Amino acid sequence: QIIESLPAFFLPQVLQGKKLLITAGPTQEPIDPVRYISNHSSGKMGYALASAAQQLGAKVTLVSGPTQLEKPINCEHIAVKSAEQMLDACQQHAQQIDIFIACAAVADYKLTEVAEQKIKKTQHQLSLQLTKNPDILATIAQQINKPFCVGFAAETQDVEHYAKDKMQRKNLDMIVANDVSNQAIGFNSDQNAVAVYWQNGQQNFPITDKQSLAIELLQLIAKRHAQTN
Amino acid sequence: QIIESLPAFFLPQVLQGKKLLITAGPTQEPIDPVRYISNHSSGKMGYALASAAQQLGAKVTLVSGPTQLEKPINCEHIAVKSAEQMLDACQQHAQQIDIFIACAAVADYKLTEVAEQKIKKTQHQLSLQLTKNPDILATIAQQINKPFCVGFAAETQDVEHYAKDKMQRKNLDMIVANDVSNQAIGFNSDQNAVAVYWQNGQQNFPITDKQSLAIELLQLIAKRHAQTN
Repeated sequence: QIIESLPAFFLPQVLQGKKLLITAGPTQEPIDPVRYISNHSSGKMGYALASAAQQLGAKVTLVSGPTQLEKPINCEHIAVKSAEQMLDACQQHAQQIDIFIACAAVADYKLTEVAEQKIKKTQHQLSLQLTKNPDILATIAQQINKPFCVGFAAETQDVEHYAKDKMQRKNLDMIVANDVSNQAIGFNSDQNAVAVYWQNGQQNFPITDKQSLAIELLQLIAKRHAQTN
Repeated sequence: QIIESLPAFFLPQVLQGKKLLITAGPTQEPIDPVRYISNHSSGKMGYALASAAQQLGAKVTLVSGPTQLEKPINCEHIAVKSAEQMLDACQQHAQQIDIFIACAAVADYKLTEVAEQKIKKTQHQLSLQLTKNPDILATIAQQINKPFCVGFAAETQDVEHYAKDKMQRKNLDMIVANDVSNQAIGFNSDQNAVAVYWQNGQQNFPITDKQSLAIELLQLIAKRHAQTN
């Protein structure tokens, strides 16, 4: 709360002139006109990053899945529902940006076929066939003249192992890992604690509110981005 | 808004001394620790009914799935997530009530097995096995000394046919039907239009705000309840 009300000139403008694209929230993958698959992401971390990046001098585009949060001020806000809609929105902006932060909890799978009418509950058992969604972060990270790419890894076990593997596999510059099996942090919480990994480096951020963490993460991202470009 | 601020003594206390149990909102059926299946119910209709019933003199217990709504004043509020949790809460109260209004959009299916850890996206295709959830309304409507039971039918086609069939099949006293394929009403909207059916009768309620509709519906429910008991 205090950080939100601080005038921007109190914070060193480490992202002055930089264009950031940030994704936030869950995605919703429709099953039929009334049902969907989603996840417990509140969008709070991504919205905090968008707000903090703007305070650090960046021009921010926020692509957001369905959340209950207020739009951050002075950010371009694009509302989407499904992973495919989020990918479309990101691809329309990804050529003109310096830094891409993929904070959204994108649904890994969508329905292979979406039912046009509400599925009747006539059967005792029902089988849903799912197909992998496009990988938004990997798609952006593979483009020519790719932006500095930062991913998030929300895991419930072997957090460091899965996070580092994801960074290598997707060609990322940094990855922010958190353990969502700890209910005090992560999904729906106002607080978070993360570990950040990059090529030959890492830094731990102990538990704090998501607004403060967003400022600290962006200061590290700005430093790493300056060193690698 | 006007109705909410009207002192209760302006409304005839047609539910004075009656105990109502109302369900509202969607349910969430976990797939794994981060993913779930749900539906687009906002809970607004159920919450409006709880608030209106209290204004009409009733003692109200509201069993609610996850919503973003404020708890109605002067109602007992029980928060649940899954259909099984909602059934448990309803069964604990259903012996002591006069009227049961099942307004929640209960998930028809749950995962046959819930994964303890986040499912990794190693496969290109994934199949989810679902099993029918317990039917909360039918369970309460089959109990000895059953309360006056009112169901809701949210349909996208053949609304009257499906609604009347549901009323007969589940042994209900009334059913409130709406066509959720009309985006101006129903899920997530502040307005609704419904048709109500009972044994040898029906009444249409044209489009209006959910607070006003809740008062009108409860006045009809109170009348039908008085006539059948």
